[in-house]
Amino acid sequence: MYDGIVQDLIDEFGRLPGIGPKSAQRIAFHILQSPSFDVSRLSTLLGEIRDKVKFCEICGNVTEQERCSICRDPRRNATLICVVEDAKDVAAIERTREFRGLYHVLGGAISPIAGIGPDDLRVTQLMQRLANGTVQEVILATNPNLEGEATATYLSRLLHTLEIRVTRLASGLPVGGDLEYADEVTLGRAFEGRRTL
Amino acid sequence: MYDGIVQDLIDEFGRLPGIGPKSAQRIAFHILQSPSFDVSRLSTLLGEIRDKVKFCEICGNVTEQERCSICRDPRRNATLICVVEDAKDVAAIERTREFRGLYHVLGGAISPIAGIGPDDLRVTQLMQRLANGTVQEVILATNPNLEGEATATYLSRLLHTLEIRVTRLASGLPVGGDLEYADEVTLGRAFEGRRTL
Repeated sequence: MYDGIVQDLIDEFGRLPGIGPKSAQRIAFHILQSPSFDVSRLSTLLGEIRDKVKFCEICGNVTEQERCSICRDPRRNATLICVVEDAKDVAAIERTREFRGLYHVLGGAISPIAGIGPDDLRVTQLMQRLANGTVQEVILATNPNLEGEATATYLSRLLHTLEIRVTRLASGLPVGGDLEYADEVTLGRAFEGRRTL
Repeated sequence: MYDGIVQDLIDEFGRLPGIGPKSAQRIAFHILQSPSFDVSRLSTLLGEIRDKVKFCEICGNVTEQERCSICRDPRRNATLICVVEDAKDVAAIERTREFRGLYHVLGGAISPIAGIGPDDLRVTQLMQRLANGTVQEVILATNPNLEGEATATYLSRLLHTLEIRVTRLASGLPVGGDLEYADEVTLGRAFEGRRTL
């Protein structure tokens, strides 16, 4: 619809997740017309990101060094490993400030439909980390959906051969949520996991 | 929350319109992890856009040449000018394939709150285009909101000094819309503009 480079830029933004044609157009014109937006900075960052950002050789989290800031931190509890699907999950858990152990990023979840099996995830690396006997508990924090549950089930069976405590994050009603609007599965889980007060 | 460049990229994407922190994070990780996304292409386009894209010296539409593809097209009806706020509006009207005249992009609308007056818009350039007597009709296609209506009212008063027909796009119910859900102002406009069948 537009001439040349404007349409090219709209098309490129449209390839990013969550950005439709209208949003892509709005973004392209914002970049074109808003003098306050530092376009060269975004361009430079995009040019650098894949070269500079690596994955931690221990846990698989994003980092610009060999090991991520969490694995390098001696104050973290090395007897506790939280297994997550994605580096974004590490950031989400860190935001809670509840967890002081280490992480292990699988890089996805088991999904027969998407053709992702255990060999496509960082499962071997997890077993290697557990081999020296330091770790006492593994928290399986994969997503509470079909793929995440399948991955947690697979890992829990694998880990039960070792002398390590294996736990799973609680499922239940979200805090601040409304019982009336909870789906049946979540409500069922909330009953299953009920605590004595 | 993330180390260095990943967080920098998330922050930059978060500065774009319509992209919140969660979307920005999702986009940054997509760029980092999806091999199919051509990051160098986006980076190059961003580096070029402000240098290569200009505004048509006649109508103010976006172009990579001195004059835009519409102003250069001899098949367009030069007696008809459609006045719009923004280059995005030109693209929207072109998509209808209903209009074969020329455009004039104002670069905004009169807004006392935002401190935008007629002098901040391409009004003088519009008057210059109308001076030679070629144009017979000016269609005011500014947005049907407060600022757009104020701009249309201002321009119609200014243009009535010339021997030119001045029209405004019809306001009314959107096609495919539901009368029940129409707001009062739109429904009122639909009554005002009712046609004899």
